[in-house]
Amino acid sequence: MRRYLHLLIPAVLAWVGGTQLGAHDRARTPIRIPDLPQYLTLKCDFHTHTVFSDGKVWPDIRAEEAWREGLDAIAITDHIEHQPHKNDLPTAHNRSYQIARAHGDALRLIIIPGSEITRSMPPGHLNAIFLRDASKLDVPDWRDAVAEARRQGAFIFWNHPGWRAQQPDGRARWYAEHDELLAGDRLHGIEVVNEREYYPEAHAWCLEKNLTMLSNSDIHNPIGLDYDLHAGDRRPVTLVFARERTPEAIREALFARRTAVLAAGRLIGREEFLRPIFERSIRLLTPEVRIRGTGSAYLQIQNDSDITYVIQPDPGDSDLAFPSEIRLPAGRVALIQVRSRKNDLQTTREVQLTGQVTNLLVRPATPMTVTLPFRAVLSPQ
Amino acid sequence: MRRYLHLLIPAVLAWVGGTQLGAHDRARTPIRIPDLPQYLTLKCDFHTHTVFSDGKVWPDIRAEEAWREGLDAIAITDHIEHQPHKNDLPTAHNRSYQIARAHGDALRLIIIPGSEITRSMPPGHLNAIFLRDASKLDVPDWRDAVAEARRQGAFIFWNHPGWRAQQPDGRARWYAEHDELLAGDRLHGIEVVNEREYYPEAHAWCLEKNLTMLSNSDIHNPIGLDYDLHAGDRRPVTLVFARERTPEAIREALFARRTAVLAAGRLIGREEFLRPIFERSIRLLTPEVRIRGTGSAYLQIQNDSDITYVIQPDPGDSDLAFPSEIRLPAGRVALIQVRSRKNDLQTTREVQLTGQVTNLLVRPATPMTVTLPFRAVLSPQ
Amino acid sequence: MRRYLHLLIPAVLAWVGGTQLGAHDRARTPIRIPDLPQYLTLKCDFHTHTVFSDGKVWPDIRAEEAWREGLDAIAITDHIEHQPHKNDLPTAHNRSYQIARAHGDALRLIIIPGSEITRSMPPGHLNAIFLRDASKLDVPDWRDAVAEARRQGAFIFWNHPGWRAQQPDGRARWYAEHDELLAGDRLHGIEVVNEREYYPEAHAWCLEKNLTMLSNSDIHNPIGLDYDLHAGDRRPVTLVFARERTPEAIREALFARRTAVLAAGRLIGREEFLRPIFERSIRLLTPEVRIRGTGSAYLQIQNDSDITYVIQPDPGDSDLAFPSEIRLPAGRVALIQVRSRKNDLQTTREVQLTGQVTNLLVRPATPMTVTLPFRAVLSPQ
Amino acid sequence: MRRYLHLLIPAVLAWVGGTQLGAHDRARTPIRIPDLPQYLTLKCDFHTHTVFSDGKVWPDIRAEEAWREGLDAIAITDHIEHQPHKNDLPTAHNRSYQIARAHGDALRLIIIPGSEITRSMPPGHLNAIFLRDASKLDVPDWRDAVAEARRQGAFIFWNHPGWRAQQPDGRARWYAEHDELLAGDRLHGIEVVNEREYYPEAHAWCLEKNLTMLSNSDIHNPIGLDYDLHAGDRRPVTLVFARERTPEAIREALFARRTAVLAAGRLIGREEFLRPIFERSIRLLTPEVRIRGTGSAYLQIQNDSDITYVIQPDPGDSDLAFPSEIRLPAGRVALIQVRSRKNDLQTTREVQLTGQVTNLLVRPATPMTVTLPFRAVLSPQ
Repeated sequence: MRRYLHLLIPAVLAWVGGTQLGAHDRARTPIRIPDLPQYLTLKCDFHTHTVFSDGKVWPDIRAEEAWREGLDAIAITDHIEHQPHKNDLPTAHNRSYQIARAHGDALRLIIIPGSEITRSMPPGHLNAIFLRDASKLDVPDWRDAVAEARRQGAFIFWNHPGWRAQQPDGRARWYAEHDELLAGDRLHGIEVVNEREYYPEAHAWCLEKNLTMLSNSDIHNPIGLDYDLHAGDRRPVTLVFARERTPEAIREALFARRTAVLAAGRLIGREEFLRPIFERSIRLLTPEVRIRGTGSAYLQIQNDSDITYVIQPDPGDSDLAFPSEIRLPAGRVALIQVRSRKNDLQTTREVQLTGQVTNLLVRPATPMTVTLPFRAVLSPQ
Repeated sequence: MRRYLHLLIPAVLAWVGGTQLGAHDRARTPIRIPDLPQYLTLKCDFHTHTVFSDGKVWPDIRAEEAWREGLDAIAITDHIEHQPHKNDLPTAHNRSYQIARAHGDALRLIIIPGSEITRSMPPGHLNAIFLRDASKLDVPDWRDAVAEARRQGAFIFWNHPGWRAQQPDGRARWYAEHDELLAGDRLHGIEVVNEREYYPEAHAWCLEKNLTMLSNSDIHNPIGLDYDLHAGDRRPVTLVFARERTPEAIREALFARRTAVLAAGRLIGREEFLRPIFERSIRLLTPEVRIRGTGSAYLQIQNDSDITYVIQPDPGDSDLAFPSEIRLPAGRVALIQVRSRKNDLQTTREVQLTGQVTNLLVRPATPMTVTLPFRAVLSPQ
Repeated sequence: MRRYLHLLIPAVLAWVGGTQLGAHDRARTPIRIPDLPQYLTLKCDFHTHTVFSDGKVWPDIRAEEAWREGLDAIAITDHIEHQPHKNDLPTAHNRSYQIARAHGDALRLIIIPGSEITRSMPPGHLNAIFLRDASKLDVPDWRDAVAEARRQGAFIFWNHPGWRAQQPDGRARWYAEHDELLAGDRLHGIEVVNEREYYPEAHAWCLEKNLTMLSNSDIHNPIGLDYDLHAGDRRPVTLVFARERTPEAIREALFARRTAVLAAGRLIGREEFLRPIFERSIRLLTPEVRIRGTGSAYLQIQNDSDITYVIQPDPGDSDLAFPSEIRLPAGRVALIQVRSRKNDLQTTREVQLTGQVTNLLVRPATPMTVTLPFRAVLSPQ
Repeated sequence: MRRYLHLLIPAVLAWVGGTQLGAHDRARTPIRIPDLPQYLTLKCDFHTHTVFSDGKVWPDIRAEEAWREGLDAIAITDHIEHQPHKNDLPTAHNRSYQIARAHGDALRLIIIPGSEITRSMPPGHLNAIFLRDASKLDVPDWRDAVAEARRQGAFIFWNHPGWRAQQPDGRARWYAEHDELLAGDRLHGIEVVNEREYYPEAHAWCLEKNLTMLSNSDIHNPIGLDYDLHAGDRRPVTLVFARERTPEAIREALFARRTAVLAAGRLIGREEFLRPIFERSIRLLTPEVRIRGTGSAYLQIQNDSDITYVIQPDPGDSDLAFPSEIRLPAGRVALIQVRSRKNDLQTTREVQLTGQVTNLLVRPATPMTVTLPFRAVLSPQ
């Protein structure tokens, strides 16, 4: 259906005076993910670039894009060492933040100052955010740069640990330098997702070493050149579970490791965060179903979130059969057929439909298990 | 249908090594407008901005966007006088062209050097394209700037003559200064469309004074922030009827006034260009229809272009009735019902279905008239 | 952007066993319109056809379509007199309701029995819903049919009063027969919208004569052949303000005239219903804006409904300027720029932004006036 | 981007006379697959149902849907034995064809008469098309039904051989009954794809036993309830390589096994058909690329078909590197980066980029190999 949309074309254009040809809404599309019982769920991207390093947009565009996409906060993290535009645009490490910040203030989007310390592996690239003066990180030795960032109170995380430019096989590797950073309180988190890559090793390290999980876009282009936003193809974001919608609250939550990864329709993180998000996303509209004989009935589950949950249910029991896959599409009501295997039952029972949500990972390759309880009233044909 | 698209979600993410999450095609979508018998139809945008004046993107992005959207050529026309970024990015009038040109060469997109001479009205803003050295236009007196542009061989056109910042009522006005420019061979064309505005006065002047019609985006933002490209909401372009796909051929065609305006689904221009575009866009798949009694039959017309044509047909005659509106959707086959008004006809006749294409303007408020001939075989019930 | 979506294509198809190629969600997309303080807002379509008269689908499809589109109730209203399929499918006036009802019960969608009394004008076509036995309406005289419907307790309304097959100029006309019906308690409402037609005369009559406003699809085809559902092109519905989600509550609300018309993005009805819908749809996210000098600030308004509101604001005053049009897009947050006209103000004031919502009609050609209050803190540059 | 489309809302609705609210194009979207050198490529669906067996639409709807989707021909194949609507709609085996045929004639869509002989496995369900009188197949013994079909000259094929209702593990199995059918000239083809299922065993049998490959929708619902047509989610079709666009030519091609399977973006069939389709779909726009040093250049390939080709290239050689995956999106121009691995080359060479098209299967699990030749001009930095 190539041309599903035809713009409605009004009659012949007027004879005098400027005529408006179409229009485009400048608007924000909220990302619907439930808050947790005690925290707001903020959608953040802590890794973005502008023309002030090797990015392709003026810094205010980063704020405009993020506001429209429904984000709450972004960090501007231009490279310290990689300055390919510097012959045209002289290096000024704090300027991209300042410019983005002004537009962020106008839009009420939080802008966080940061820098990408851009070194060969190990230790690779590190983002330092909540900096006070990024220019002081422009020093020869990476240890000095990291120490300065920490001196300024920065939250520091390791970027794209399995990036193929540094790890040709795509596998993240932990080096002695990372032990050193960790021991010195200079490494607080790791990108489990960068752009369109997921690093299962980083996922495991965050759990083992008690680090914060990050998920960032590392966007250089205008966002629309890299993501089909209109079709639901969104940049990865870090969900931050914060006490309020302020930079300080985000900083507190990051150091307290209260984050999750939302990328390409998957939610990755600690079960304590994922479970309430799932449970607060969905509503069973049919607490009771009635089945006669070997017939069937429909459960209806409304999913008010922007995440489509995909569940592989356990096969049921000798009496009731469930579908082999249950999809709970974002923003819609799913229909789930429950069939009775026996003709002669006469009973009312509390059923626990359990299954694995394949796009909710509580550890690498480990989906979260959920239970959907309902009541079945079974009667003979 | 809010969530018409769900991304297909594969099974649980792998345990080791980077995993790719989705993808995005870097591809060009051709704009399908027929060539003329003796000319190629090139799609061009002669008015774009970058961070080197008040635009928001690095210049190579202008080439990337235009290539993806199916354009053949763009001009980079940063402001000479308006340099709001100059404290961060020192003025360098030729640099945005040079940077865009390198990427255009890689993509085989034509990049034309230009500048916007940015003055109060009159004479307002003027674009000079095909410049050799834009920095020489950075002079106090606009007459000197224009003279220098002409000395370099530039094609010069008047931008957005009804722009509300300069004409609060949206009406374009012709001043003595424009007579002066015209007399001195310093004004060769006018923007009939700029961004989302159509100026009927400019349209009339182009016909009266024999000037070239332009239609340009004047884009400052990343294009995706201003146009819903995925939904067919495209930037305005100037169609250039050129002997070949080269900068020189575009220049020749511009001076020879072989252009048309394509904006928001309307095509505006001289009939000698619009008629062959229309005729080469469509194919009658049913040269003959057969109707019995007061029944009806369907004409099928395939439109292979990207323009949806909207026709208000003349009402037919005492024997045959046509619909009150005929839409020929872009890239599709339309179904047009022809009804017989009489029960007892027994004849074969050549029918001329004539009408006005309301979105093809040959002069202000004047749609082009077209004829769709077919054969009707009529017989009694 | 013709091909904005490419289906993700997995690697080479497996060698053994059936392989699933893609999938399609069977799901419901809720229509988000706020409830009123004391009533639920139910979305209903009281005019649909099936193969049992001149429709094109088996009756259960009407239930399936309506459930997926987020409706709460439909009436099945096959023609009594017009039975073009009867040689294949013998007339059985109650069967389409029975078949649709069984599927509606499985989906928890309310199905209402009805019939279309299909006569020439006057009185034209009348729908009788909440019938007990439709076959008793199959009588020669329309007065007898209507009387029988009323005897069964039916709610009766006049369909498409300006239908061009009966009124070639598209104008609705009131005949003596309608006075007779009204006087005899045999006419309770009128379709203000049928399919894609709006009848302003009917709109006025509903207000003058205190009749119920209806808005129905009169769908004959599978719905997807007539509406681009995925692009937000939805069938018209009657909003019913009911005490609960039951057939009885719908019947009560219809007789009590608690309805509104929702069609093609317009909401038409009595102000007592439209005002709370508008007010409960939107949230001002920025109760206070701060402007320095002749600068500007943004109001942000979130619209949680599925109706895009289009407001033409009053022009502001000598101090503050508003945009010439304010669009509040459905499900998104709009950005509204407020500019100060004076440089030297030092004041905090409560501002009333008033305007007309052009797609909310409280009477023909009369949009509803709304006020958006906010606080402006103005200070010199 | 939930609300990517807002319908443009005109100003306040008019005061008098019916007002049109939006519109919907009744149009056909051609499926762009190249013709072969000596044959037309017709898109056909030989397995559809209507209300005359267990389908859900009046038969003319099958013609309307298929015409709009760009098909050339469909067969109406209602079940002989399975008549769940017969109490309402008395069995009449030829009527669905007759009704669909009348509408197909009006639209110039070919309608082929057929029936589904609906038996338990073995032999399972068989479609017989090009029947003269379907009612004669309504006999107790399936052998008699098949014999009668053959007597009428029918083309007979085995439907969904791995259908889970008959093969719970989804695997197709060949029984003695199928040997019997084959030996008796009563089995000419097999559905390799039915609805959303692909049967690799059937694919292999077609090659081994020289049978015709079929790919059909087996549609029962209105098509829009099962396929997201607007998003490119199309019904499976059998490509028929025919001498002309007539029923007779389709019949000849079917018996001559000149078909291929197009389903969910995959093309499955004999290499003699797939290779010219691929080669006639694409055009290399850049026969020559120039690379300096270890730089790169772009190949541009235009794909004028509606199939997105996905190629896994061989890795290149010691001098030139190719991407790990090449996607040629339908209707667009792909950009393919070629990198030089060596700095000091000075040569012009003819390069053969070879790879496997993973969505073109010439036998089960065997993609077609293709070569994209181009010229590389390499020079030192």
